[in-house]
Formats: sequence, structure tokens, C-alpha cells
Amino acid sequence: MKLSEEKLSSEKVFGGRIFDVCVDVVALPDGGRAVRECVRHPGGAAVLFVRDGSIALVKQFRYLYGEELYEIPAGKLDAGEDPRSAALRELEEETGYRAAECKHIMDIYPTPGYTDEVIHIYCVESARFVGQNLDEGEFLGVEFVPADEVAAMIFRGEIKDSKTICAVLAHFFGKTLPKKA
Amino acid sequence: MKLSEEKLSSEKVFGGRIFDVCVDVVALPDGGRAVRECVRHPGGAAVLFVRDGSIALVKQFRYLYGEELYEIPAGKLDAGEDPRSAALRELEEETGYRAAECKHIMDIYPTPGYTDEVIHIYCVESARFVGQNLDEGEFLGVEFVPADEVAAMIFRGEIKDSKTICAVLAHFFGKTLPKKA
Repeated sequence: MKLSEEKLSSEKVFGGRIFDVCVDVVALPDGGRAVRECVRHPGGAAVLFVRDGSIALVKQFRYLYGEELYEIPAGKLDAGEDPRSAALRELEEETGYRAAECKHIMDIYPTPGYTDEVIHIYCVESARFVGQNLDEGEFLGVEFVPADEVAAMIFRGEIKDSKTICAVLAHFFGKTLPKKA
Repeated sequence: MKLSEEKLSSEKVFGGRIFDVCVDVVALPDGGRAVRECVRHPGGAAVLFVRDGSIALVKQFRYLYGEELYEIPAGKLDAGEDPRSAALRELEEETGYRAAECKHIMDIYPTPGYTDEVIHIYCVESARFVGQNLDEGEFLGVEFVPADEVAAMIFRGEIKDSKTICAVLAHFFGKTLPKKA
């Protein structure tokens, strides 16, 4: 059975700076109806920046969790912005490193039950320091941590951000295990 | 500098079945103010179920992306529910397999910029089939896919769900690479 849900109606219940929220009514495959609460987000871009075997981590206070988190550099796409450009822009703004190119690692869906956000993840291995340039109200520190230690931090529960875990473990996977075609 | 943000006010702008949305005003470390748009979610639980070297994947239509996604079994915590119990409950409801115990792999924060959801991920290696028991309006198929093939699906971009990528790559990491203490 090919599964799908058809939109019958959509009500925008919140319009924000970061996301909107819509409550949609859908027709189910069996003809029934269901309500879908939808966070509509423009998408994000993130960069695994590896320099001399170390990974750039930004440490910032995340209000939603009430704690400082380690994450790879990342941010929201501006309207109409190409994800690759956004990734390089965020890398430079947050770490001060400017890169000419980046390699696509993967796109992830952070939590598909209620948001449509796509996080586009890239890898940068060559960049030059030009100076940090943070958004207003953005406070963060940058640390270069050896890749093995970053992996250990994940397994000790010290890194919990999903895009960071996906990017770092994919990096190790690519370096150590054969990929199938 | 120890970074933190102090809540000055909070307005609940949406109360849903899956999540609430609050708009909070916070004091920044430099004394400035900022608005934080917050999706408040009760948290989720997910299970990497490995049987004879294959991983249980559920395939379901995800309205937010308009496509069928492969994910490990997972669901939202009921009010007051222990994450471990929720993981076993979701495994049984979605795949029909009942397990007596599960091992904690990691907790992840899917997208810390705007949600407080924590996804608790467990591993199950022994379970017996008792029959699928889906929620109303839930339609999904279950496939057991060899672990190597699941990894290949990730790197071909056929699996994009963050909890699934974290769980599967952590599983390989644990089996193939030395962990630091």
C-alpha cells in the first residue's frame, strides 16, 4: 500500500521569526481524518570543520535546554539562500574561518513528527581565519577538539545535538568502514 | 564567561496535542534582551532493534515532508511516562515485538534552536513477536534490513531521520572503533 495523507485544510496559528505553526486536517489512507500540528521552518545548514585532525565545536547557551551545548557551526537559512552558501556564511560568522568550498555530507530531518526542517550538513577541510562576526544577541565560544575526543564526548553524553552527532559519526564511518556503492 | 539567559516573560501562543509554543523574552549575558520562540515537547523514545544482524525499520508517510520515511520505532512520551517504558511500548506497538529489557544508547537533542524535545534512544537485541498494535490513524510497515545495508541507505541519502542516523552509526561505532573511557 502506497501511503499518503491529503491536506484538507490548514490554519496558521503562529507566525514567528524562526518558524510558523500550522494546524492541518488531513485525509488518511483509510478515509479517516487526522489533525497534523506542523512547525514550518526554512531549513538550516551546518559545517563539520576539520583542521589538523580536530573538529570545530561552538559552545553556546541554549535557552530551550537551559544549558550550554557543544554543536558544530550552524544556522538557519536566510530567505532564498542556497544551503551551501549558508553553511559557509555560518562557519565564518561563528568561527571566523572563511572557506572557499565545502563537501556535502548528508541532509537530516531532525524530528519528522512535527517539523519540516531540513538540516544540510557539509564538511570543510581548508579555511583561513578572517575574524568572528556574530549575530546580535549571539554569544558563543569556539573550541578545536581532536576528533577522537569529540567521539568520546558523544558517547559520554556530553554532546547531544543531533546534527553534530550525525556529522561526527559519519566522518568516522567514512574514514574507517567501507561504504557500499 | 559563563553564559546564560534569564526568562523575563513567557506567553503561550499555541497549545497542541503534540507540542505547545511559547514566546519568551530573555535577558542576555550583556544585559540586552531577546525573544525566544519555543516549541515545548514532552520528549520521545526510540529503539534500535537488532535481530540476527538486521535492524527493524518502520516506513511511514510523514506529512511534514510529504514522503515515506524510514525510521527506527519511536514515539512521544505519554504524560509522566518513563522513557525506557515508552521505548518498549513503541517497539511493541509499531513492530509487534515485545522485549523485557533495553540498553540505553544515547539521548539526543534533535534541533536545539527552537525545541526542548529530548529523544531517548535504546537498543534491544532480544524480543518475541506478539503482534502489532498501532495507534489510531497510524499506518506503517516494518522491514528488517541488514545493518550494513542500513548504513549504506544513510550514505545514499535514503534515510534522513536524525534519531535513526545517530542510533545506527553509534551501533557501528560501538562495534568497530575503540571507545575512550
